[in-house]
Amino acid sequence: MSKASILLAAGIALGCWNNLAAAASDEPIQPVEPAVVKEPAKVELGKKLFFDPRLSRSGAISCNSCHNLAMGGSDNLKASIGHKWQQGSINSPTVLNSSLNIAQFWDGRAKDLREQAGGPIANPMEMASTHELAIQVLNSIPGYRAEFKRVFGKDGITIEEVTGALAAFEETLVTPNSRFDQWLRGDKKALTVRELAGYELFKNSGCVACHNGVAVGGNSFQKMGLVAPYQTDNKAEGRAGVTGKDADRFNFKVPTLRNVALTYPYFHDGEAATLTQAVDVMGRLQLGRTFTPDENAQIVAFLKTLTGDQPAIQYPVLPPSEDDTPRPEPFLK
Amino acid sequence: MSKASILLAAGIALGCWNNLAAAASDEPIQPVEPAVVKEPAKVELGKKLFFDPRLSRSGAISCNSCHNLAMGGSDNLKASIGHKWQQGSINSPTVLNSSLNIAQFWDGRAKDLREQAGGPIANPMEMASTHELAIQVLNSIPGYRAEFKRVFGKDGITIEEVTGALAAFEETLVTPNSRFDQWLRGDKKALTVRELAGYELFKNSGCVACHNGVAVGGNSFQKMGLVAPYQTDNKAEGRAGVTGKDADRFNFKVPTLRNVALTYPYFHDGEAATLTQAVDVMGRLQLGRTFTPDENAQIVAFLKTLTGDQPAIQYPVLPPSEDDTPRPEPFLK
Repeated sequence: MSKASILLAAGIALGCWNNLAAAASDEPIQPVEPAVVKEPAKVELGKKLFFDPRLSRSGAISCNSCHNLAMGGSDNLKASIGHKWQQGSINSPTVLNSSLNIAQFWDGRAKDLREQAGGPIANPMEMASTHELAIQVLNSIPGYRAEFKRVFGKDGITIEEVTGALAAFEETLVTPNSRFDQWLRGDKKALTVRELAGYELFKNSGCVACHNGVAVGGNSFQKMGLVAPYQTDNKAEGRAGVTGKDADRFNFKVPTLRNVALTYPYFHDGEAATLTQAVDVMGRLQLGRTFTPDENAQIVAFLKTLTGDQPAIQYPVLPPSEDDTPRPEPFLK
Repeated sequence: MSKASILLAAGIALGCWNNLAAAASDEPIQPVEPAVVKEPAKVELGKKLFFDPRLSRSGAISCNSCHNLAMGGSDNLKASIGHKWQQGSINSPTVLNSSLNIAQFWDGRAKDLREQAGGPIANPMEMASTHELAIQVLNSIPGYRAEFKRVFGKDGITIEEVTGALAAFEETLVTPNSRFDQWLRGDKKALTVRELAGYELFKNSGCVACHNGVAVGGNSFQKMGLVAPYQTDNKAEGRAGVTGKDADRFNFKVPTLRNVALTYPYFHDGEAATLTQAVDVMGRLQLGRTFTPDENAQIVAFLKTLTGDQPAIQYPVLPPSEDDTPRPEPFLK
């Protein structure tokens, strides 16, 4: 653990408003490393599953529906559209760089990507299938049977293999080489003076206390509405739903700010439509500071430098269903 | 026009049950030619638009939702899911090889891909936007403004440019090199004896009278239920809705059979779940012939050889919305 990391960890324990970066000799944000693909066949299988709407009851919703890799790994909606157009209860977080998260979902109820991947498939509000049905569908498709066998070395597809392949694919969805990372790596011309001023303000005003590390967030749970309460109609309780502790009420995983220019709208309720709004609310509610319009704009300029190279995705061709594949039921009463 | 084509055209005019292939010296089906991309920048722009759900009111439905290039250019649903989960009125035809169609939509109401592309965007049952709103959205996005200017050489985006780019992309979505095309081109080992027997039966029993040409269909309108009436709850009237002629009732564009193994379910109402069912119904209702199970299986085996190379699609990264981009409204009452 670097000196900066230790200081940051200590700072987070003390509270998110501490100004840590100024005390650290290194930058509090580290560059995203390119993905190292160790199991390409598993990743390729995971990609197919990620794009396959047959994992949903309707045959129309895939992982990519709410975590669209054409749109920053998100759906750019306040709340996602689930089975039969049900309104999601929380904003879909980006899948990009999600392997760097301390845990998955806003409340961290899944410990890793593999555990996460099983959730939406069986959530009646989301893909509305069951693990049993999803496996029955996949096992009925010769192309998948063969591919799972190649990857996992045995007959018969299991949900653990499905979520393992999905996680393996998602681990490749990192976004290196943002202009900010180029700057971190020593290219001092990669940022404009104004963007750099925004970064300094981001550090000096305390944003960086929670938004730090490789993912510029994603590594702690913090209370939404620290200095002043956050007003929302959204019913999410945050971390308290996992720990059962009242002290964790409205504690949410700090979202990554990587690619934040692509992942609008913001916050767990998606109520901040723009970065300007998000920075303003964060300043007032988390830091007790009202940024001037120019300060706000500087921080926004910095945030826009966090857009990295988006994953290069060859759109998959999915193996076709067979006559005995359970058919989608989008309109079943 | 080849001798075979002339004979076929004459045969179609006389009625779709004529056995034409036997009279033709050439094969009644021609290979799919690879796409020749003349305007790559326009095609690339069209690809972005094809995958962009912001052309819909909800921000969630793109062209690719119902014409999924991972699934044979179709959605593999009986009826598509439109805005607010409305049930579509007709099965989504594949976009693959659609440039070879005599006209677009099952009833041919759009003369070409460009005219087609404007339809779903503004259809309240489908993407439920308007051309005005779609243009407002695109014009608000700097990435699109720049790209349209590069492609069309002027400021300001028009719906004609949008549909033109979409059509240019769709024209590239051809599927050459199927095993059947390899056979047509002289590789006599490309088909098994059984597949070839299926093709002979397809020709000799009269299927080929309507399903001929490069797309193995798509080049004429024919009555659904020629020998015996087709029973369906689907309300589509077919070509009569376009021509106003009662004689055109239940006349539909003959669908292409290219990639038919991927484009289930079948018929304009999507009521045939499998190729076996589709071949059986076609035999009885269009040809007055009940295929034996073995004959049916032979024809199905032939049909499966019509799956060509699927288009290689690099999944696009869409330019992000700006603060003033009209936001999607999936849940607005």
